[in-house]
Amino acid sequence: MSERAFNFSAGPGALPEPVIKQAQQDLWNFQGSGMGVCELSHRGPEFDQILGEALADCREVGSIPDSHHILFLQGGATTQADMVPMNFLNEGMTGDYLETGKWAEDAIKEAGYYAKINGGTVHVAGSTKDEGYTRLPADKECKYVDDAAYLLYVSNNTIYGLQFNRVPKSKAPKVCDMSSDMFSRPIDWSHFDMVYAGAQKNLGPSGQALVVIKDEFMQKAPKNRVGRMHDYSIHAAKESRFNTPNTFAIYLMGQTFKWIRREFGSLDQVDQYNREKAKIIYDAIDNSDFFKGHVQEQDARSLMNITFTTPNAELDEEFCKEAKKHGLLTLEGHRSIGGMRASVYNAFPIEGCRKLAEFMKNFESQHRTQVAGASA
Amino acid sequence: MSERAFNFSAGPGALPEPVIKQAQQDLWNFQGSGMGVCELSHRGPEFDQILGEALADCREVGSIPDSHHILFLQGGATTQADMVPMNFLNEGMTGDYLETGKWAEDAIKEAGYYAKINGGTVHVAGSTKDEGYTRLPADKECKYVDDAAYLLYVSNNTIYGLQFNRVPKSKAPKVCDMSSDMFSRPIDWSHFDMVYAGAQKNLGPSGQALVVIKDEFMQKAPKNRVGRMHDYSIHAAKESRFNTPNTFAIYLMGQTFKWIRREFGSLDQVDQYNREKAKIIYDAIDNSDFFKGHVQEQDARSLMNITFTTPNAELDEEFCKEAKKHGLLTLEGHRSIGGMRASVYNAFPIEGCRKLAEFMKNFESQHRTQVAGASA
Repeated sequence: MSERAFNFSAGPGALPEPVIKQAQQDLWNFQGSGMGVCELSHRGPEFDQILGEALADCREVGSIPDSHHILFLQGGATTQADMVPMNFLNEGMTGDYLETGKWAEDAIKEAGYYAKINGGTVHVAGSTKDEGYTRLPADKECKYVDDAAYLLYVSNNTIYGLQFNRVPKSKAPKVCDMSSDMFSRPIDWSHFDMVYAGAQKNLGPSGQALVVIKDEFMQKAPKNRVGRMHDYSIHAAKESRFNTPNTFAIYLMGQTFKWIRREFGSLDQVDQYNREKAKIIYDAIDNSDFFKGHVQEQDARSLMNITFTTPNAELDEEFCKEAKKHGLLTLEGHRSIGGMRASVYNAFPIEGCRKLAEFMKNFESQHRTQVAGASA
Repeated sequence: MSERAFNFSAGPGALPEPVIKQAQQDLWNFQGSGMGVCELSHRGPEFDQILGEALADCREVGSIPDSHHILFLQGGATTQADMVPMNFLNEGMTGDYLETGKWAEDAIKEAGYYAKINGGTVHVAGSTKDEGYTRLPADKECKYVDDAAYLLYVSNNTIYGLQFNRVPKSKAPKVCDMSSDMFSRPIDWSHFDMVYAGAQKNLGPSGQALVVIKDEFMQKAPKNRVGRMHDYSIHAAKESRFNTPNTFAIYLMGQTFKWIRREFGSLDQVDQYNREKAKIIYDAIDNSDFFKGHVQEQDARSLMNITFTTPNAELDEEFCKEAKKHGLLTLEGHRSIGGMRASVYNAFPIEGCRKLAEFMKNFESQHRTQVAGASA
């Protein structure tokens, strides 16, 4: 087996290595069935088992109550940002949104389309766009519409490295896009009517969303108002097999849930590990006047995506180039803000964080004399 | 490496073994990048290469002219059966359909929803439903609406084992669901404004559709009439990366296109191989009065899905059970019609067809005396 590097990709991101090793075997022959895992009928006994275990392990790992359905749907989080207003933003209703980054902006755009069609209203309850998303809007700044059909917000923003450490205090049903921090920490389900996440950060490969939706909320969507592919009730009734599902993604998510159970036992433990990992890199930033974090509000700094810069763009580029030579890959920031971004999802190992921190220290000592003002 | 069986699954179906072996390596470390293929950023240079090659190889293998866009979209063929009327069945327009099996029935159902919303009409130009789909409707039986927005039909029906060997003679733009025979034979693109296929039969894993759409047809969809995830023009402009694509499926499809090029050179050669394979099994049926094919019209017999029965349901069950012991898997017919179904897509090897024919012969000689009337 050839050597793997430390992959800081924001998503699709690093998978747990034991999961990859298992998948390599199962691609050829799933549990001695004589068929590879991508070649199993989605209605056969082998896939029944894969799906059944993925659902059960997901429920256990996430402590998801029976009041909520678990759906495995194609199309990622973008499809969910479309399906939510298609189903729930109807005549006379308001969809409330928090604008805290690009994915939130996109969700607001999708909702605008359905508001026009369905006669609803899109309302932005709070935004930090004007400040370049360097912090999150506080509850007291937000003008929540308490009788909104829902409040939709994104718990973690991969581009800016912002993460909610609180649940917004709206009285509306809360829908949360947890694409980049799902199962990275415990979830208090009493707050959420719906949570969705693209799988490609903490849960598995791209091309798949995990949707957790409260039955009571799901029932609020008018019947026969949307095409069958967009109807949550149909997907729930058919246990995510209304159409042929993304079988490999469900398999890989299932293996990832098992890995979480085996490796950590609980999301509390996962959270603790992620805090430890992020601290190593944030300490490297905070203990330097050479590196600067993008996020100004301490409590909103993401444990998943750590964004920072050197004193200038040339050095940022040099940093990423040099890092690559040391086996520290895809540290480039999103093209919209530049700089660096270290994504350290569940499967990213703590050794990689230590190696990055060490590299940062060395890079700083080699380059700080080049930079006027940084030696002050 | 453990032994693999002959897998007659109707889909997800057998993949080419060299493709699986390559995927096993690339899952761990894609081309020495230090990152597995599922862990690559969909905007990074490695995936740029994967996508670029998949598009180029798809165009070359399928001889797809520049007039047509190639899109890799999530959600399989069911999503396409939804998106076509959502985009093209507008006020005062007719969507023409041929009802030749379950997937056609489903597509008609989806269209009915949008006809109601958009003020269009769904018209069934021809159907063999009343005859249990044992043949296809001839052109002279069909009442095509020549100024329809489109004629949608399914080229191959996996459940009944029916396949079109002609293109319907409607003057409307033709949209064809080729989910189960895409790239199993050459396609004359001059006939088609749009072709789509779920990947899980001839092209790759499930969770992915290949969509080939003529630019001129695509432009007929009214602008800003559908949400962005449902807008073909957006997916075309963004080269299938409007949202995070199913990167593993695109990789695996790309590898499958390369395998077709390497192994066969052209779709003519693929077609010849598939004819040879199907003939072995159809001969075994035709040369027996014990086995009976479901499809009555010779010319409509599918080269992809060969459906047949023994003299009774108990023997059908026995047949599948015994076959499994001989490494011939998933021969059970679809639950709606029972009997047997041998799916022999591109990647299914001819040795498996020979082994099945031999098994059929032996099974018949062991069981024909049990069956009254079959010894006549």
